Amino acid sequence: MSIEQTINIGLFGFGTVGQGIYQVMKRATNAHAVIRRICVRDINKPRKVTPEPELLTDDESLILNDPDINLIVEVVDSPEASYRIVTSALRKGIPVVSGNKAMIARHLPELIDLQRRYDTALLYDASSCGSIPVIRNLEEYYDNDLLLEVKGILNGSSNYILSRVFDHNEEYADALRRAQELGFAESDPSFDIEGFDSLFKLIIITVHALGVYVAPDRIFTYGISSLSSFDIQYAREKRMKIKLVAQVVKVEPSKFTMFVMPEFVSPSKYIYSVDDEYNGVVIRGECYDRQFMFGKGAGSLPTASSILSDVMARRHGYRYEYKKMNYLELPGYTTDVELRVYLRFTDRMLPDSMPFVRINETYISEHNNYIIGDILLSDLIACRDLLSSPGTFIANIPRFFLDKD
Amino acid sequence: MSIEQTINIGLFGFGTVGQGIYQVMKRATNAHAVIRRICVRDINKPRKVTPEPELLTDDESLILNDPDINLIVEVVDSPEASYRIVTSALRKGIPVVSGNKAMIARHLPELIDLQRRYDTALLYDASSCGSIPVIRNLEEYYDNDLLLEVKGILNGSSNYILSRVFDHNEEYADALRRAQELGFAESDPSFDIEGFDSLFKLIIITVHALGVYVAPDRIFTYGISSLSSFDIQYAREKRMKIKLVAQVVKVEPSKFTMFVMPEFVSPSKYIYSVDDEYNGVVIRGECYDRQFMFGKGAGSLPTASSILSDVMARRHGYRYEYKKMNYLELPGYTTDVELRVYLRFTDRMLPDSMPFVRINETYISEHNNYIIGDILLSDLIACRDLLSSPGTFIANIPRFFLDKD
Repeated sequence: MSIEQTINIGLFGFGTVGQGIYQVMKRATNAHAVIRRICVRDINKPRKVTPEPELLTDDESLILNDPDINLIVEVVDSPEASYRIVTSALRKGIPVVSGNKAMIARHLPELIDLQRRYDTALLYDASSCGSIPVIRNLEEYYDNDLLLEVKGILNGSSNYILSRVFDHNEEYADALRRAQELGFAESDPSFDIEGFDSLFKLIIITVHALGVYVAPDRIFTYGISSLSSFDIQYAREKRMKIKLVAQVVKVEPSKFTMFVMPEFVSPSKYIYSVDDEYNGVVIRGECYDRQFMFGKGAGSLPTASSILSDVMARRHGYRYEYKKMNYLELPGYTTDVELRVYLRFTDRMLPDSMPFVRINETYISEHNNYIIGDILLSDLIACRDLLSSPGTFIANIPRFFLDKD
Repeated sequence: MSIEQTINIGLFGFGTVGQGIYQVMKRATNAHAVIRRICVRDINKPRKVTPEPELLTDDESLILNDPDINLIVEVVDSPEASYRIVTSALRKGIPVVSGNKAMIARHLPELIDLQRRYDTALLYDASSCGSIPVIRNLEEYYDNDLLLEVKGILNGSSNYILSRVFDHNEEYADALRRAQELGFAESDPSFDIEGFDSLFKLIIITVHALGVYVAPDRIFTYGISSLSSFDIQYAREKRMKIKLVAQVVKVEPSKFTMFVMPEFVSPSKYIYSVDDEYNGVVIRGECYDRQFMFGKGAGSLPTASSILSDVMARRHGYRYEYKKMNYLELPGYTTDVELRVYLRFTDRMLPDSMPFVRINETYISEHNNYIIGDILLSDLIACRDLLSSPGTFIANIPRFFLDKD
């Protein structure tokens, strides 16, 4: 695409983010990008932002077969529709900008292959941390062997809830309801609250950080839905906050691990201060120590501005090269890593059912019980069902990575 | 330069940063970059890091005329030598990575012209904020009309000193000496302390943020050398810190202003927490609100890792396109902006000699006097000599930009 050429966008999806894109494009006069057509499921649905009626269609093929459209921007809700649209476009050689992290995290190897085979591009900086350019920086700037760790708060909704609880003393249920009212959390909040949104972002980040794809079901993911006032009180007594943290960490030069789980965070850590709906990512490397990037991770306009950055990158023919995937020696994913965890439980048999390497503290009382113990990450994965039993909550106590984030 | 080709580096300068580059290159096995020759002024000078003797030369032409060398990395101290080396290399079509902010800030229009005329590249992400990729992100990611402001702490040495004073209750003179002992401040610290280092970085940042070059002598620059214990006490009473802040701000859609001066920073601001030798940059935009990037801004290895990122970018033929300079409507630089300032003075006639628009507060005592007043930035520039008279200190009180950083 030459610099002089106008970008003619076919937009799929006109929900919160789609409407934001429409508004942002109107303001960005130097972008030389125009929305030519918008494909939605229901043309007649009332919307806060109303586009010119002739732009709207419910026929996907009107975009996919339009020779004038040279970029597809896809922000539909459904991962299945997203997959169908994105793969169809790539097979036609049309470049795509997508924000659908669930779809991308599940299908990334195939999507990389399609980009190569059809010599086209798929950009998705908006899929991870909204307006924070974490993917682009990992791909382009931290493109070397020095990277040791990427760790952060990748989900704005769950962080908003935890922030209401820890900073504003709200009850968990009230905070969740408030997040839904404000539009931070989906009507079905499990995607955010159970850690899957963070997981999908972490998978994408890891491809660009270390050049390795790990499928979702191989990664330990634990959310905050079972967080109780006892856990909150426990954290407060230790002068900590509980945050939902996603991390990928090199544990030795040729091995890395990754997981999403609640974590006790002390005030000296950068992510301690990432409050409300913000996201924060710490990139740690051998020579530059720690870099911290912080910004709005969600919302209509922040996500739309990130989409705009991807659209403008296409004006200069930008594509992810997935350079690190071609490195001769790629680090291998391991779950053979010992973690120290806080486990709160109702069923007093629970700790005995789990292969703890050692138990450092035990607290038993009439209403609440917890242990602090060391356990292999692989065993946490094996015990997923036990950990989702009622009255159970688990959180990471960073021990190996002290003072590193 | 094809991806398969090895990068053969000719390195100019083997001081702190040069030695860091040498060390980092040894670790970065996937970089496919090798230092072929190192040009220094004195081959026999003892050094902490000793390269292979056959690499060293004191003859510039041995690098500039070596057809095998396909990238020059220039980290010499002297801006004059830097200018000579960089322009000679560009005229020969050899791409250059440079960390010399003083030279780049003074000669950027010519350096951009040389890159175009000789179809080659000059990369200098290491010149601004060391390991924080602020230039690259402004050039590539915030490449649109939404950008409103870039503001930050760009100089690690002066921030280290202020941090010792405000966080550790040290005397200014002790803090300066300590900074010199630790190698943060040069033996002649005026470059850091008087704000010129921040100024040069700000000029480079503004080219990539807004597409406009402004020469150093047109920009108000005031440092922290005359900060006194009275000013420190005043700030403490207001629960503020004084930071040396560089900023470029759009004051209306077609106009921007920029300056470097001490500023009262309240605890709610991101840059309040940027302590010690760290740098922090806030990028504010219309849709994404505020992004905050934070990391080590100085030092041998952080700077070297930033140089490595530029070196690896050359493997993929990356160059700054200076896209924003080609926008049809560029904002214009203005100093017709009213600032609210704190002015501490000994000579009681001083305020009358300056064209304050209004004076909001006056404090006169036996030993110390200050006023809080509003004045045009253009008048501050006109009063530079008065402001450098003994017993005088001025600091910005952000009024227009409240809650924005």
